[in-house]
Amino acid sequence: MSGIYLASQSPRRKEILESLEVDFEVFPISYNEDPPRDNESPIDYVERNTKDKILAASALLQTANQEIKPILTADTIVNLDGKVYGKPQNEDHGISMLLDLSGQYHSVITCIVIGKFKSKESEEVDLVINSIETQVLMRSLSANECKKYWHTGEPKDKAGGYAIQGKGSSFVEKINGSFSNVVGLPILETCQLLDQINIDYWLTK
Amino acid sequence: MSGIYLASQSPRRKEILESLEVDFEVFPISYNEDPPRDNESPIDYVERNTKDKILAASALLQTANQEIKPILTADTIVNLDGKVYGKPQNEDHGISMLLDLSGQYHSVITCIVIGKFKSKESEEVDLVINSIETQVLMRSLSANECKKYWHTGEPKDKAGGYAIQGKGSSFVEKINGSFSNVVGLPILETCQLLDQINIDYWLTK
Repeated sequence: MSGIYLASQSPRRKEILESLEVDFEVFPISYNEDPPRDNESPIDYVERNTKDKILAASALLQTANQEIKPILTADTIVNLDGKVYGKPQNEDHGISMLLDLSGQYHSVITCIVIGKFKSKESEEVDLVINSIETQVLMRSLSANECKKYWHTGEPKDKAGGYAIQGKGSSFVEKINGSFSNVVGLPILETCQLLDQINIDYWLTK
Repeated sequence: MSGIYLASQSPRRKEILESLEVDFEVFPISYNEDPPRDNESPIDYVERNTKDKILAASALLQTANQEIKPILTADTIVNLDGKVYGKPQNEDHGISMLLDLSGQYHSVITCIVIGKFKSKESEEVDLVINSIETQVLMRSLSANECKKYWHTGEPKDKAGGYAIQGKGSSFVEKINGSFSNVVGLPILETCQLLDQINIDYWLTK
C-alpha cells in the first residue's frame, strides 16, 4: 500500500509528516467543529470531534473518485481547568485567552485518529486513536504583551491563541510531556500509529 | 546600541535569534572545549567552558578592528547520571551514546552567557549568565534503530548524538522543562538576558 491521506488543513501537521518522510497527500475537507456539550470533558470533546472529522473524510473519500488509502487526522485543543480553548475569533478574544493562560499551567490535548477501510469495497472503517496531553506553564503576561503578540499575526489560527514553535515560545516557561503534541501532532505517538497500520516513515523504510 | 554578536557556529542558535528578530551578527571563533575535570559537576563544566568561550571571543574582538558590542554564546551538554555527553566522534561513539540514553531520563543543560564591555576602551567584560536544565525521556532503542538514525547524518554535530527538533523526535517520549533549551538556546531565558542588557527582540521593539 502506498501512503496515507492527511485530512487536516494545518501546515504544521503537514510539515511534521514531511519531516518523518511519510508518503502522504493532503485530502482537503472542511469540517465545522461542534462546541463542547454540557458536562463533556475536554478529552471526550476532542475525541468526538476528531472521530466525526475522520468519518466525514471517509464518507467523502468513498464518493470521490480517488484511491482508497488510510486517512489520518488530528485535532488540538487547550484545556484550562476543564474549559476548552479553540482558535481565537478576533483580537479581543485572542488577548483574553492569553490573559486567562498567563502565569499558570494549562494542558494541550491532541487527538490523532487513523481511519482504515476494512476492504477496498467496504464502507466500514477501522479507527486507531490516541490522545496525548502535555502540560504547559506560561509566564505572567501583561495585556500590552498579549496585544503586541496578537499583531504579529501568529496567534490567529492557533488553539489557545499561541504558537509554541514561534514567537509564542518567548512566553513558555516549561512543558511537561510531548512538545510536538503542543505543535499539533505528537511525533512519537504518530509513529506508533503508523507502525500499527504498516505505513512506513524514515525509521522503517 | 545596535545589536549583539553571536559567538557560536550552531545553525540552530542562529535560527532562534533570527526568529526572535534580534539584531545580531555571527562572530566566528574556533574554540576547543576542554574535557570535564575530575569531580567537576556537569553544570560546573558547561559553565566553565561557556565562560572561557566568551572570554576568548572578547579578547579576539578587542584585537580585531570591529565595532564593540555585547557577545552572546552558549554551550549545550547532555548529562546522564553525572556523566557528560558532548558531540559524537564517530559512528560507534554516536550509537553507543544513544544506547546509553535509551529507555531512561537524561538531562540537557545549556549555559548562556552574554559578555559586555564595561566601556568602549575597557578590556573588562561584565558577564550575565544563566544555565537551564531540561529532563528528557527517551524510548527504548535497538542498536539497529540507532544505526539507522546515525546514517540520516543528523546526530553528527549534536550533543548526546540526537536532535530533538529533527528525526530524533521519533525517539523522545516526553520532556520536562524548556524545549528550546534541548535545541541549544532556551528562548524565554535568552529573552530575559537580552532584557537585562537592553537589547531588543520582537516583543520589545
